[in-house]
Amino acid sequence: MGRVTERRRVIRIRDGAVSTRPDTLVAEEPMEIRLGGKPLAITMRTPGDDFALAAGFLVSEGVLASAAELANIVYCAGATGEGGSNTYNVVDVRLADGVPVPDITLERNVYTTSSCGLCGKASLDAVRTTARWPLDTSPDTPVRIEPATLSALPDRLRAAQRVFERTGGLHAAALFTTDGELLDIREDVGRHNAVDKIVGRALQQGQLPLSSCVLMVSGRASFELVQKAVMAGIPVLAAVSAPSSLAVDLAVETGLTLVGFLRGTSMNVYAGEHRLALSAAASTD
Amino acid sequence: MGRVTERRRVIRIRDGAVSTRPDTLVAEEPMEIRLGGKPLAITMRTPGDDFALAAGFLVSEGVLASAAELANIVYCAGATGEGGSNTYNVVDVRLADGVPVPDITLERNVYTTSSCGLCGKASLDAVRTTARWPLDTSPDTPVRIEPATLSALPDRLRAAQRVFERTGGLHAAALFTTDGELLDIREDVGRHNAVDKIVGRALQQGQLPLSSCVLMVSGRASFELVQKAVMAGIPVLAAVSAPSSLAVDLAVETGLTLVGFLRGTSMNVYAGEHRLALSAAASTD
Repeated sequence: MGRVTERRRVIRIRDGAVSTRPDTLVAEEPMEIRLGGKPLAITMRTPGDDFALAAGFLVSEGVLASAAELANIVYCAGATGEGGSNTYNVVDVRLADGVPVPDITLERNVYTTSSCGLCGKASLDAVRTTARWPLDTSPDTPVRIEPATLSALPDRLRAAQRVFERTGGLHAAALFTTDGELLDIREDVGRHNAVDKIVGRALQQGQLPLSSCVLMVSGRASFELVQKAVMAGIPVLAAVSAPSSLAVDLAVETGLTLVGFLRGTSMNVYAGEHRLALSAAASTD
Repeated sequence: MGRVTERRRVIRIRDGAVSTRPDTLVAEEPMEIRLGGKPLAITMRTPGDDFALAAGFLVSEGVLASAAELANIVYCAGATGEGGSNTYNVVDVRLADGVPVPDITLERNVYTTSSCGLCGKASLDAVRTTARWPLDTSPDTPVRIEPATLSALPDRLRAAQRVFERTGGLHAAALFTTDGELLDIREDVGRHNAVDKIVGRALQQGQLPLSSCVLMVSGRASFELVQKAVMAGIPVLAAVSAPSSLAVDLAVETGLTLVGFLRGTSMNVYAGEHRLALSAAASTD
């Protein structure tokens, strides 16, 4: 259970010289998430924080929004591999009494809750109607963040990435205060898993919605990552690389502040610039 | 239909100076893949090459292996969005007469074909038993490739990436001959989609298995990407960044040559080194 890295033999070629040595790799294993015993999803993830991953996934899907709605999460006892030992790769989430269990079908997916032909607009509508909270607890006084504070986050993220240093193979997501203080960081082979682990841990600790936090991700910003931020009530998402068109559209529609290409003292703000403390003369807000 | 990039307004902050301008983003839209009219999967993808994406996805899943097994692929006529126009986001794949339609359930997934508890070993077994071809058409004379040829691929991949230049937001996958000649390149918000588009196009043109080709991907090598290479009969997978533990295990188990950290004249060979033309003195094979 829960080995974050594994060792394998590797042949290294450097300018024609060939050598063999052990190498440290990021661990990847399948994990099945069940809801009340019923299989819901399988994700390839880095073992560790599995219950947080399951809880965060269910927040993203609109099933869970508070610790009170969660009865418990367990590794399935019957999920045994070779030798009869538990694989620790199947987790079952039980909801508290009275919490509705969603209808789980193959089409269970926020992208398809619209009856119209599948399109970007329907995907946006689905997230907007599923979200449990506004992104600001008090809309008249939105979260404000200094661009200089954002500029400091990538270095803090990298400094806190322990496993990436050894393997080069992990995505990271980190939660910061608007003052730039690191609250949590998770690493995983899948960026969406790293975000789910952060959100799930916050749910378990009764901290949702994360209304005064900034989520930082190590790579690009896709629709799915914006969705996860919105569903957790996080008002600011910052990414080192580019967002997609639909990520920007969802941010605009939900009021999320979306920052991309956050590098050095430069950044692009794609939506929600009212939360950035820009100088009055230059601001377009 | 099929816009690969879209324009959005962006606020740029550069060393404290704030300006507003249009920006080019990579397009992301949901696409639903149906098999004989039945919903099978939804993927967030960059529009374009949609039929190839659907066909390649079905190769990866072990449903399709040759053009003869494919009757046709169409955009669903009833999938209309606002204004009644086709969203071009729902494609239906019809198999040729006599080709078995797999049982589509929520658990339909190569990771779960084993009855034992979900684990890495079961995932490996599932791919091995589903694969339609060996990776070398003639195992006694395997594909051979020069390390110098591999070293030239990343630059060729980047030179051929048209959309990345403009958006910074796209993953790429490219197919090369063992002499380093570029055969095909696809870009997508999802790396797995880029690979599916390459494999699907090869299927449509009757070129599977791709037994004498090298697949190069722009980022990391996950289990899923190794699976896709194996299912398409591609013997060599090269990645710019790190592989995961399960990606290496699957490569070892299936005999795939897996190269990671392919940068400059350096590379790491994690499996299948017998296909690399290493100097006899240094080779461990």
